[in-house]
Amino acid sequence: MKTLEERLRKFRDTRDWDKFHNPKDLAVSISVEAAELLEVFQWRSEGAPIDDEVKKALESEVADVFSYLILLCDKTGIDLIEATHEKIDRNEKRFPAASSRGVAKPEEKL
Amino acid sequence: MKTLEERLRKFRDTRDWDKFHNPKDLAVSISVEAAELLEVFQWRSEGAPIDDEVKKALESEVADVFSYLILLCDKTGIDLIEATHEKIDRNEKRFPAASSRGVAKPEEKL
Amino acid sequence: MKTLEERLRKFRDTRDWDKFHNPKDLAVSISVEAAELLEVFQWRSEGAPIDDEVKKALESEVADVFSYLILLCDKTGIDLIEATHEKIDRNEKRFPAASSRGVAKPEEKL
Amino acid sequence: MKTLEERLRKFRDTRDWDKFHNPKDLAVSISVEAAELLEVFQWRSEGAPIDDEVKKALESEVADVFSYLILLCDKTGIDLIEATHEKIDRNEKRFPAASSRGVAKPEEKL
Repeated sequence: MKTLEERLRKFRDTRDWDKFHNPKDLAVSISVEAAELLEVFQWRSEGAPIDDEVKKALESEVADVFSYLILLCDKTGIDLIEATHEKIDRNEKRFPAASSRGVAKPEEKL
Repeated sequence: MKTLEERLRKFRDTRDWDKFHNPKDLAVSISVEAAELLEVFQWRSEGAPIDDEVKKALESEVADVFSYLILLCDKTGIDLIEATHEKIDRNEKRFPAASSRGVAKPEEKL
Repeated sequence: MKTLEERLRKFRDTRDWDKFHNPKDLAVSISVEAAELLEVFQWRSEGAPIDDEVKKALESEVADVFSYLILLCDKTGIDLIEATHEKIDRNEKRFPAASSRGVAKPEEKL
Repeated sequence: MKTLEERLRKFRDTRDWDKFHNPKDLAVSISVEAAELLEVFQWRSEGAPIDDEVKKALESEVADVFSYLILLCDKTGIDLIEATHEKIDRNEKRFPAASSRGVAKPEEKL
């Protein structure tokens, strides 16, 4: 993870792209890439198997979402791993295991 | 990262939510959470400073995007770190540092 | 449609919100609202029936997407009806009825 | 608008694509197309002028969002124009003109 962050920063800086990377445009980019990831599943049924071609497409798209996520966190001083641990802490309280077991309410599904 | 992956799997499994987590719905969830992240910037100008309240909102939303990204990769057998390294390998060839320096073409900006 | 456009313009102008409506932020808003529409289907299977509660939620969300679409077109001088007719003209050439019948390729599905 | 709806239905049916058009996949498509619309503004500053090339790209993308919106409404029995009028009725109550004038709160901006 640390290696990846450094590599992305280096990639960005050797191309002088830091000047384009304001937080809002990075958030726009995450949404755009998330939609490209979603597009892989467009018109495919939920149970359709993930073959090698689909998996390759997914690998390419999750990488894009993740890269922009790391770059946004770098730009805004957020520790992504730490922030996610804290969110799980909160979700463990919001959705107690006993009462949430197998419940399908959309808002209870992370 | 490994600890985070294990924690998310455990969170999911103790609530019996694995049955909801087909890859397509996880991709839908990534898009939905990416839009909630984007919403933090809606009507805010690009140069607006990130104060503590905004940063806290961002931390919560990047955590959601990241969690679903990890869960999708878990479900489809993708190594997220590895896939991202491979994508950077490809991007380093697509956008040679010399010719890409400071160029603002949308398609050349990761 | 004309009445709707005029009503949205009046709604915006009596609140002095025109100053917030730059085209980029309107496009951001369309994406944010499209994700709220998608959220109605999150964790619901493709074949699940649309009951009254779901239909009411959908009505509210398609209205938001449509409103911002109209406001973006107003702002950029685009005739939405005309632009859509022209797009269908192009799609009729791209996807001849004979060869496209029932074909499930993602890129051929509008 | 009526002509457009009929043309889209005919376009869909002569290609036998109705079978792909379940409501969830149409909502996925709206999100995917909304992101392509947003992509036109990626890395462009908020105040950048809309030249002819950008306008042409926007026309093509708003047409796609609108087409899927019409097809989703057709599929779920929603009257898009009527639903939008009703939403504006509600918004007029939520955001009284007097107290909302020029206020920049994100949740108050339609």
